[in-house]
Amino acid sequence: MENNPVAAEDDRARSLRRMRRLSLHLAEPSLLPAERQLATVPCARAKRVSVANPAAFAAYMRGKHWDVQVRVFEFFRSRPDLQTPIEIPMADHRELCLRQLRALVREGGVRPFRYVFEDPGVYFAVAQAAGSVDMSLGIKMGVQYSLWGGSVINLGTQKHKEMFFDGIDNLDYPGCFAMTELHHGSNVQGLQTTATFDIATDEFIINTPNDGAIKWWIGNAALHGKFATVFAKLLLPSQETGGVTDMGIHAFIVPIRDLKTHQTLPGVEIRDCGHKVGLNGVDNGALKFSFVRIPRDNLLNRFGDVSRDGKYTSSLPSVSKRFAAMLGELVGGRVGLGYSSVNVLQLAVTIAVRYSLLRQQFGPPKQPEVCILDYQSQQQKLMPMLASTYAFHFASRYMVENYTEMKKTHDEQIVSDVHALSAGLKSYITSYTAKSLSICREACGGHGYAAVNRFGSLRNDHDIFQTFEGDNTVLLQQVAGDLLKQYKEKFQGGTLSVTWNYLRDSMGTYLSQPNPVTARWEGEDHLRDPKFQLDAFRYRTSRLLQTAAMRLRKHTKTLGSFGAWNRCLNHLLTLAESHIESVILVKFIEAVNNCPDNSTRTVLKLVCDLYALDRIWNDIGTYRNVDYVAPNKAKAIQKLRDYLCFQLRTVAKELIDAFDLPDHVTRAPIAMQSQAYTNYTQQVGFQPEPAPVVL
Amino acid sequence: MENNPVAAEDDRARSLRRMRRLSLHLAEPSLLPAERQLATVPCARAKRVSVANPAAFAAYMRGKHWDVQVRVFEFFRSRPDLQTPIEIPMADHRELCLRQLRALVREGGVRPFRYVFEDPGVYFAVAQAAGSVDMSLGIKMGVQYSLWGGSVINLGTQKHKEMFFDGIDNLDYPGCFAMTELHHGSNVQGLQTTATFDIATDEFIINTPNDGAIKWWIGNAALHGKFATVFAKLLLPSQETGGVTDMGIHAFIVPIRDLKTHQTLPGVEIRDCGHKVGLNGVDNGALKFSFVRIPRDNLLNRFGDVSRDGKYTSSLPSVSKRFAAMLGELVGGRVGLGYSSVNVLQLAVTIAVRYSLLRQQFGPPKQPEVCILDYQSQQQKLMPMLASTYAFHFASRYMVENYTEMKKTHDEQIVSDVHALSAGLKSYITSYTAKSLSICREACGGHGYAAVNRFGSLRNDHDIFQTFEGDNTVLLQQVAGDLLKQYKEKFQGGTLSVTWNYLRDSMGTYLSQPNPVTARWEGEDHLRDPKFQLDAFRYRTSRLLQTAAMRLRKHTKTLGSFGAWNRCLNHLLTLAESHIESVILVKFIEAVNNCPDNSTRTVLKLVCDLYALDRIWNDIGTYRNVDYVAPNKAKAIQKLRDYLCFQLRTVAKELIDAFDLPDHVTRAPIAMQSQAYTNYTQQVGFQPEPAPVVL
Repeated sequence: MENNPVAAEDDRARSLRRMRRLSLHLAEPSLLPAERQLATVPCARAKRVSVANPAAFAAYMRGKHWDVQVRVFEFFRSRPDLQTPIEIPMADHRELCLRQLRALVREGGVRPFRYVFEDPGVYFAVAQAAGSVDMSLGIKMGVQYSLWGGSVINLGTQKHKEMFFDGIDNLDYPGCFAMTELHHGSNVQGLQTTATFDIATDEFIINTPNDGAIKWWIGNAALHGKFATVFAKLLLPSQETGGVTDMGIHAFIVPIRDLKTHQTLPGVEIRDCGHKVGLNGVDNGALKFSFVRIPRDNLLNRFGDVSRDGKYTSSLPSVSKRFAAMLGELVGGRVGLGYSSVNVLQLAVTIAVRYSLLRQQFGPPKQPEVCILDYQSQQQKLMPMLASTYAFHFASRYMVENYTEMKKTHDEQIVSDVHALSAGLKSYITSYTAKSLSICREACGGHGYAAVNRFGSLRNDHDIFQTFEGDNTVLLQQVAGDLLKQYKEKFQGGTLSVTWNYLRDSMGTYLSQPNPVTARWEGEDHLRDPKFQLDAFRYRTSRLLQTAAMRLRKHTKTLGSFGAWNRCLNHLLTLAESHIESVILVKFIEAVNNCPDNSTRTVLKLVCDLYALDRIWNDIGTYRNVDYVAPNKAKAIQKLRDYLCFQLRTVAKELIDAFDLPDHVTRAPIAMQSQAYTNYTQQVGFQPEPAPVVL
Repeated sequence: MENNPVAAEDDRARSLRRMRRLSLHLAEPSLLPAERQLATVPCARAKRVSVANPAAFAAYMRGKHWDVQVRVFEFFRSRPDLQTPIEIPMADHRELCLRQLRALVREGGVRPFRYVFEDPGVYFAVAQAAGSVDMSLGIKMGVQYSLWGGSVINLGTQKHKEMFFDGIDNLDYPGCFAMTELHHGSNVQGLQTTATFDIATDEFIINTPNDGAIKWWIGNAALHGKFATVFAKLLLPSQETGGVTDMGIHAFIVPIRDLKTHQTLPGVEIRDCGHKVGLNGVDNGALKFSFVRIPRDNLLNRFGDVSRDGKYTSSLPSVSKRFAAMLGELVGGRVGLGYSSVNVLQLAVTIAVRYSLLRQQFGPPKQPEVCILDYQSQQQKLMPMLASTYAFHFASRYMVENYTEMKKTHDEQIVSDVHALSAGLKSYITSYTAKSLSICREACGGHGYAAVNRFGSLRNDHDIFQTFEGDNTVLLQQVAGDLLKQYKEKFQGGTLSVTWNYLRDSMGTYLSQPNPVTARWEGEDHLRDPKFQLDAFRYRTSRLLQTAAMRLRKHTKTLGSFGAWNRCLNHLLTLAESHIESVILVKFIEAVNNCPDNSTRTVLKLVCDLYALDRIWNDIGTYRNVDYVAPNKAKAIQKLRDYLCFQLRTVAKELIDAFDLPDHVTRAPIAMQSQAYTNYTQQVGFQPEPAPVVL
C-alpha cells in the first residue's frame, strides 16, 4: 500500500533503521549456546524419531489465545444455522456472512473491536478462527474492525472515538475502508478523489473527478455499509493564488447510507463489484461521489487538521511524513493476513496429509497397495510444505507478539521492526500458501476436486491475500528498500572493502568469503548444524544485498533511480525473499531451542532442518555459482533433504495432530480421523455398508 | 491411467521402442542446416525486432481447423441464451451445458462424434473452441463423444456401432465412462467391480462388491446418462474349480436409466458427486450396481469375447496385453486435454498481457506512471509464460497431427510415439498451465480477482486437467519408464562406457562430456544458437537417464523393483520432464525454421530463445553442478534471459494478437482491445462518462 520505494526515498526517513534492527534479531547472542546444544541432538539416521508426548507437543504449538479460538469454533459448531453450505448463491452468502458476524458479536460474546485495542493478539486469534469457519467471515470482520474501525480510531481523535466506537463495536455502524480506486491500488499517493474545504459552510466536499477515481473493491460497500472512511486529496483554498493547495492524501468519514432507511445518500453512487474469484460472502462495491458535503469534524485529524478558517495544522512537518504516519497505522491488516494465512496452510496441509495416509494406490507385486504418502513424489510435495507450515507458525506468532508490544509501548524501534517484518512475512507467507493450496489439491487427485474437501474454496478465498493490504511484489520491494537504506546509511562514501566490513560488523561473525574447505563438508552433523544453515542463509542475503547496492549505484548514473531500481527488480525481490527466509529460520531455531519437552524438541529439530535444507537446495544454483558449496556438498544437501522428507513422513500424522485442528474444523470428509471413506460416501447419499469390509 | 511402470514391466513389451523413435525425432537430420540458417538471424541487441506482417504472423499461427473453431465461436456469439453467466447455480449450469451441447450438434451443424473418427484434428479443434465458450461444455463433449462414444466404437465391434452410433451422435443416448472407483483411480488394474458371466441366462451380472468399488466421478451419471461403459473384472465360470476365473478388466455397456422415462433402472443406485472445484456444468455421479444383468452382447468385445458357452477368445495372448490394448484406445482423451490446455493458457496470457499493457502504476518522479508490463518483475512473470505458450502451441499441434496420422494408418510406430508424446505433453502442459493461471491472477492484482475477468473460473475448471485421463505424476512415470526401457534394451549387460556409447549412438552427435572451454562461452550468438540450446537440453536428459538407470540397478538389489523405483522417483520425474522439454524445444525450433515470413521468423526465434534459456536457467544448479556451464556462463544465461524478457515485452502486444482471440472469446473486460476500463465500469452498472477524459 505504500508508495514506490525509489520514487519516494525521502519519504522514508522514519524507517531508515528498521531492517538493521531486524538483522540484530538475526544475530542474537542467545542463539549461539543453543546452537551448540542443538548439535548434540542425535542425527536422524542414528535414532528413529517419534513423538513420545503428543500432549506436550500440542501444548507447545498452541498459541496464547487458543481458548478464544476454541470458543469461536464451539460457537459455530453449536449453530448449524450459521454454517456456510458448500453451494450458496452470492446474495445469500453475503447475508449469511453478516448474520455470522452479528451472532458472534451479539450472541457469542466475542467483541473483536475491543480486542483490536486492548489485546491485538486476541483479535488476530479470533480473526484466524473466524476465517477457518468461513474465510469471508474473517475478512468481513477485518473490514469492519481492523479497516473501518481501525481507521476511525487510529487516524481520528477522541471526538471520533466517542461518536463511533459503540456503533462499530456492536455492528450498528457497518462501515467501509475506501482507499483503492479503479486506477490506483498500490500507488496510494496517486489517488484522485478530492476533499475540498469550503470555508463558507465549514464543510469538505468529497468528489470523484473521473471514473478512474471511483473507489473500487470497497468491502461492505455494495450492501451493508453505513459509512466509509474515504481517502482523498485534501484541497485547501489558497489565499495567495485564489485556487486550492493540495495537502496530500487524508482520510474522511463519509456517510453513504441513511442510518434508518438504509437508502443511499444523495451524491453517492454505489455499484456492486459483483462476483469474485472467492470471498463472495463479502459485499465489495464501487463508490462514486458527486460533490458530497461532510462536516469539517469528519476529517480524521490525528496527523493533520484544518481549522475553522481553513488553516492546516499538523505535528508532522511534511506531506510525506504525514502520509507515512497515516499508512503506518494500517499495518495491523498485514499482520492479520500473514497470521491467518498460516492457518489456511495448516488446514490444507492437514487435509492433504491425512488423506495421503488414508489413500492407497499401487504397491509391490502381489502385496497390498501402499499409502500414497509412501511415495517419494508425494513426500516431496507435502513434507517441505509441512516443515514450512511449522516455520511460518513460529515466525507469525513472533510477528503478532511484536505487534502487540508495539501497540502497548509505541516504541519507535518496535514500530520499525513490525513494519518491515509484517511486509515481509505477509508477502512471503501468503505467496507460499497460495502455491501450496494448488499443490495440495493436485496431490489429493480426484477426491481433492470435490468441493466438500475444501481445497477449491480455500484457494479461491485465500488467493487475494497476495494482493490486498499491499501487493506482495510491492511489499517485497519495501523490504528490499529498507535493507538497502540501512546498508547505505552505514557505508555512504565508503569503498567496497568498507562495505564488506560493514556487513561483517552489522551481521555478526557469521559472514565469510566462501571457504574452499568448508564448501566441501558434507557430513550430516554439519548440514544439520544450525550454524551452517544460518551461515548459508545469511551469506546469500549479504551477497545479494551487496551486489544489489553496487548494481543500483551503477545503473542510477545512466537510468536514474527509478530506471535503475526497475533494472534490478528481480534481484531486489530475491534479496527480500532471502532475507525473510533468514528471519523465519532464526525464529524456528529459537522455537526448537526453547522447547522444554525433549522428544518434541527432537522432532521439531528435524522439521527445522528440512525447512533450512529445502530452501538451500531450492537456490543451489546461486550457492554453486559462488562456490559456497562444492558439487559433493550440493549432492549431499539434496540427499539429506530427500531423506528428511522420508523421516518426516514417519511422524507426519503426529506433526499434523499437533496442529490440533478437530474434524469439525477441517470438515473435509477425506480428512476425517476415522471412517473417512464412509463419511465421504454417506455425504453423497449412500447408506452405510452393513459390515465395514473395506475399512 | 495405466498400471505401475515397475510392477508391470512385462506388460509393456509393445511400447519398448516408443521413446527411441521419439528421440529420433529429436535428432532429425533436417535440423542442422536450419540451425545454421538461424544463426544468421541478427541478434536481439543488434536489431530491434518488430512484427512487420501481423497477418502473416497470425496466419502462420492458425491451425488447419481454425475455420471450424470460428464456426463454434460465431454460433455461440449468435445465441446469447446459451452463454454461461458469471454466477449460475450448479443445477442450472448442468442443464445449460446439456442445452449448449445439444444446440451445437442439432442446430449448429457441428457433429463431434463423426470428427472423432473421420478427422480427429477437427474434433480436437471443436473441443478446444467449446472449452473457450465454457470449459464444462468442452468436457461434457469429451465425456459424450471421446469417452462414452469412443469406448463403444474403439472397444466394441460392428454390432455396437450399428446399435449406438446414431444415438450417441445425435445425443439421444447420453452416456458415461465408468472406469474410476472410489478406491481406485490411477491403478485401473485394481478395480473391484465384477462382471460375472451367467451361462444359464447368457448374461453378465454387474456388481459392486464393496463401497470402495462404487464408480465415482462419472461424468453424465448424476443426471443425463442413459448408458454407461462400465469397466469391471470379467469373471468366467471355471469348469475345473467350479468357481470363477478372473479374466482381467473388460468394458461393458450397462443401461442405467430407462430410455423413455429416464427412471434409474433396477439394481442401479445413482448418487450425485455434488459440487466440484470447477466444471460444475458437468454432472458427475457415483454408480453402485447390485447384480445388474446385461445381455452377453453388451461386452465390448474387440479385444476379447465370451462365447455362448462361456469360452473366452481373444486375438491377444495375455491379460496384460489385452489390458494395454484397451487402455491404448483411450489415448485420445490425453491428446485432447493437452491440446485444450494450451488454449486455456493462451486465453489467460492474453488477458494478463493486455491488462498489463493497460494498467499503469507508479513511475519516475514527476513523470507519468508506467504500464506494469514495463516492470522487470511483471516481465519475469509473463514473458517466459508467453514463450511457453508458443512452445506448447507448436508441440501440441504436432501431437494432434501425429494422432490423426495414427488413426488413419494404425502404424505401430506412430501408435507408440503418440502414447509417449501424449502422456508427456498432457502432463507437462497441464501442470504448467495450472501454475500459470494462478500467476496471471496474481499479476493482475485486484482486478484479476473479479470473476468477470475469468482467471478464477479458468483455474477452477482447468485444475482437474492435471488429474483426469491419467494423473500427471503417474503419466510422467510412464514417460520415464519408456525412456528406461529403450535404454535397457540397448545396453543390456553392457558396461558403463558402452552406456555412454549407446547414448552417443542413439541421440546423435550432440552429446559430449562437459567441455571446459565451451562451458565458458558466454557470447549471445552462442547462447542463442539452437545447437547450444539443444545440446544443453539433451545433455541434461541423457545424464539423468544414465544416472537413473544406474541408481535403479543399484537399489533394485536391496529394495526390489518397486522400492527402487520409489527411491528414485523424484529423479525419474525430473528425467521425464527434462525429456519433454527437449521434445518441445525441437518442435519449436522446427516451427521457427519452417516459417516462410522473415519478420515472423525473427520474432519467433526470439520467443524460442527465451523458452530455451528460461528452462536452462531454471535448472542452472544441475548444469553448474556438473560444470556443464561455468559461473560466467551461468550469469550470462541469466542476463540474456532477463534481456529477452525485456525484448519480448516490446512485441508483447503483437505476440498476443497473433493468437487471434477476439474480444468476444476472451470476454474479460480488463482485456478488451479498446475502452477496457470503460467496459469494466459499465459492466458493474456505471453510466459511460460524458467525455472520456480518463481513457
